[in-house]
Amino acid sequence: MNNEPIRIGTLGTGRMAGNLGRLWAGKGHRIFFGSRDPRRANALAESAGPQARGGTYAEAVAFGAVILLAIPWTVVEETLRSLGSLDGKILVDMTNPIRQTEAGMELALNHTMSFAEAIAKQAPGAQVVKAFNTIYFAVLEKPAFGAEQASSFFCGDDERAKAVVARLSRDLGFEPVDSGPLRNARLLEPLAVLWMQLAFSAGYGSDIAFKLLKR
Amino acid sequence: MNNEPIRIGTLGTGRMAGNLGRLWAGKGHRIFFGSRDPRRANALAESAGPQARGGTYAEAVAFGAVILLAIPWTVVEETLRSLGSLDGKILVDMTNPIRQTEAGMELALNHTMSFAEAIAKQAPGAQVVKAFNTIYFAVLEKPAFGAEQASSFFCGDDERAKAVVARLSRDLGFEPVDSGPLRNARLLEPLAVLWMQLAFSAGYGSDIAFKLLKR
Repeated sequence: MNNEPIRIGTLGTGRMAGNLGRLWAGKGHRIFFGSRDPRRANALAESAGPQARGGTYAEAVAFGAVILLAIPWTVVEETLRSLGSLDGKILVDMTNPIRQTEAGMELALNHTMSFAEAIAKQAPGAQVVKAFNTIYFAVLEKPAFGAEQASSFFCGDDERAKAVVARLSRDLGFEPVDSGPLRNARLLEPLAVLWMQLAFSAGYGSDIAFKLLKR
Repeated sequence: MNNEPIRIGTLGTGRMAGNLGRLWAGKGHRIFFGSRDPRRANALAESAGPQARGGTYAEAVAFGAVILLAIPWTVVEETLRSLGSLDGKILVDMTNPIRQTEAGMELALNHTMSFAEAIAKQAPGAQVVKAFNTIYFAVLEKPAFGAEQASSFFCGDDERAKAVVARLSRDLGFEPVDSGPLRNARLLEPLAVLWMQLAFSAGYGSDIAFKLLKR
């Protein structure tokens, strides 16, 4: 991967996609926010600066070499089906297949499968990378905790696609942590739920992030 | 919890139990290593210093206010059954219910249950805390990575028991992270497998640890 700007299309315009798009636009990447409501996407694009545009999901897919899956997991299947082929695209899955219970958030899928793997089956021509699902949207703007950079854990089966995600992580100020093949999304999806439990149930608040310490 | 020494019995004398016992003994706690092979336990106790003793599982249980479950998960059920009541004991479960596959380590249980919860059912009078399962035995001796302390993630349903585990974590130089109720072992067990994948499959090596960054 050279240093050319990366063309990124988002599916969804929530807080994660909004922050990521704006921050990557600030690093010179080209962003196209895709929404079911193109007016919302356009408004977001205006706030993100001249490198950003907005429109439909289909336009975002046509635009991006990297497609950011930033919609609730429950609507992913129907959305992917409606979009048709993603052949050759790098599909960054940052969803978390969770459900709210009386005991807080929990995973809706079990250890013998991950949502990212299900997505890979639905988009067989795309290079799926599970990424950014363990980072809170507000932390995206503040990846440094004192002298420490938070980690961006990701996994996937395509090395080139993972190199792109590593670069996009680094551009935000996160330390990329290549966490192996896509099946390890079975581990990164629970990591996100641990984050939620710590932030919202165990009293740590949302200004927290995981880091892999190395020597 | 005051600052009196804590009486700790181990079930198992592997590398984790050995290091933990020796290090806690160095902090003034009382250690009793329990093994199916009491000679091995005695040898380990000698190497751990005058605060440490060794003997059978039953003696370790009788000795400890805190019992460290440090045997392979596959033999836990029969071991607990053979020991009888653990009423009033703080039972620290550091097991990981894993199996080796062609793709590396994976969890043998699914997200709707954790091994720690299964253990709590088998030892209904004990206060079970899932702890130390995400830390490599060699990292126990080096909890500081530069200026950063690694985190000791634990969870359980008894606040007093968790306070003891927090203190024992701090005594080793780890930052305690109370990760909520025992059901969150469903999240800490996968975290350990992520550690294994990073250390042994993804190329990071075993001198790594997780930290929860806060501001």
